[in-house]
Amino acid sequence: MCSRCVCSSQDDSFVKNPHLCDLKEDHLYHLSLNTNMDLEEMFSDVKFVCTGGTANRMRSFAEYVAQEIGHQFPTGVQMKNISAPADRYSMYKVGPVLSVSHGMGNPSMGILTNELIKLMYYAKCKDPIFFRIGTCGSIGHEGGTVIISDDCCDGFLKTSYTIPVLGKPFERRAQLDQGLIIELKDLIDKNDNFKVVSGTTMCAEDFYEGQGRLDGPFCKFSEEDKMQFLYRLSGKGIINMEMESTAFAALTKAAGIKASVVCVSLINRLKGDQVTTPKNVLDEWQKRPQVLVARYIKKNLCCSCK
Amino acid sequence: MCSRCVCSSQDDSFVKNPHLCDLKEDHLYHLSLNTNMDLEEMFSDVKFVCTGGTANRMRSFAEYVAQEIGHQFPTGVQMKNISAPADRYSMYKVGPVLSVSHGMGNPSMGILTNELIKLMYYAKCKDPIFFRIGTCGSIGHEGGTVIISDDCCDGFLKTSYTIPVLGKPFERRAQLDQGLIIELKDLIDKNDNFKVVSGTTMCAEDFYEGQGRLDGPFCKFSEEDKMQFLYRLSGKGIINMEMESTAFAALTKAAGIKASVVCVSLINRLKGDQVTTPKNVLDEWQKRPQVLVARYIKKNLCCSCK
Repeated sequence: MCSRCVCSSQDDSFVKNPHLCDLKEDHLYHLSLNTNMDLEEMFSDVKFVCTGGTANRMRSFAEYVAQEIGHQFPTGVQMKNISAPADRYSMYKVGPVLSVSHGMGNPSMGILTNELIKLMYYAKCKDPIFFRIGTCGSIGHEGGTVIISDDCCDGFLKTSYTIPVLGKPFERRAQLDQGLIIELKDLIDKNDNFKVVSGTTMCAEDFYEGQGRLDGPFCKFSEEDKMQFLYRLSGKGIINMEMESTAFAALTKAAGIKASVVCVSLINRLKGDQVTTPKNVLDEWQKRPQVLVARYIKKNLCCSCK
Repeated sequence: MCSRCVCSSQDDSFVKNPHLCDLKEDHLYHLSLNTNMDLEEMFSDVKFVCTGGTANRMRSFAEYVAQEIGHQFPTGVQMKNISAPADRYSMYKVGPVLSVSHGMGNPSMGILTNELIKLMYYAKCKDPIFFRIGTCGSIGHEGGTVIISDDCCDGFLKTSYTIPVLGKPFERRAQLDQGLIIELKDLIDKNDNFKVVSGTTMCAEDFYEGQGRLDGPFCKFSEEDKMQFLYRLSGKGIINMEMESTAFAALTKAAGIKASVVCVSLINRLKGDQVTTPKNVLDEWQKRPQVLVARYIKKNLCCSCK
């Protein structure tokens, strides 16, 4: 066991992989970071890692958080996309907050979460908290409703993240931190102009057939089949569908990192399939999970880490 | 049956979904296009749809193709990212060529391919050909080798794309056009400074454990397990691994669209897991599939569609 590696000697390490000892250097390829850089100097103060689908949304979130926590960049320093050279994800750092885009779907989220977990480990971050700030389709709630996932399941309704590993299925329980859900709910303000609900989230592998939509290029099921499926989900406490929660929940859980998924619904799927709401309204809705998560960050910020 | 919809009356339609008849308008949400626009006017001349992982690479490819085919934009018109308002994919149009980023993983590729197929249908495109110009890890070939997929399989080595639909597995054969592979191979020039090979491609759901890498934050298998798996793949004719081919192959096949996957290897996985090659070398390698596909486009361009 080398001195650098605590992975198999300490149960509380974020990484659980003795092979990492054998690496002279580790390239977090998709983030454009590597262990030849002083990752501890660059990232050890990170307390909150916020992920979301698109590059522009996560840039806006970084700017919003900077304003909310009163973060001042040193003179002459501008906020920049740290992962730009890799051209995969966009990552911004605002004091103790990382704001990172994750793209669409579990594989994209999985690569990011794996590399962020290694980053937390190499940077020796203390008790970081991960958020996914996303969009979803809801079952029974109107567009604009904010949904906190209290659990998540895959498209077979299993509460796990299963991928082929060496040709066989490898399953991890997809579980989110329950305390964090309570803390987030405590931050709901009666003056907020949006509703916040919680329930189980179904993580689909596709936007069209995979979410029971009738409007893809192919569809072999009927409107009745679709509605039966949506009501079956609803009967099991599933209140929304998106495409990244199980990878995010399972990998953060495996790392022992507290995590939460907070999405805004763009559509009530009991009423249709198409997202037709005007862009300016969608843009306003997408800020709602950001408001809640920024409030959490502001409340849990220690005075030294602005 | 409405007059607009040919989906269930003609076997050669790209879409196979009678429900599309019921839509007054169709929003290709992730492309920021909809049927209230004159999609036929905008896109009916498209003959080649080229997809690749990252936004910058697909912008570069569009610029490169413009140069290769001698495409002139009208005075005052600049090439622009057509899908920018949706902030999901980047799409550029250069005469008969669309160049679009697909992100990482089958779900992201699946959303894009579904929407591109609907776009081809609404725009009344004639015999479009789809390419994925990507990156991969190879099994037994050095970094920089160009690999044309002659077939593709999932992480369980099944030659199909299977996703949960209404709670049950729904399987589509992932099959690529065999004639197109021969045509692409015919374009190899003896003066090219790169090798081109073909074989079966394994489409993984993850970059780390899902591709038998030992360098993720978690790993429960040994170096020996990994090598056994890689040699098992090799014995079955699998020569590379990436993360988008099965969705791409299955959906284009279902639409009756000819498609090909041409990737450059960034690493020979029999020699390691980490991508450590310098960025300028990786950038040069990533142009190699573009060279071959641009050559195909140039050769198959009719004189009226530059």
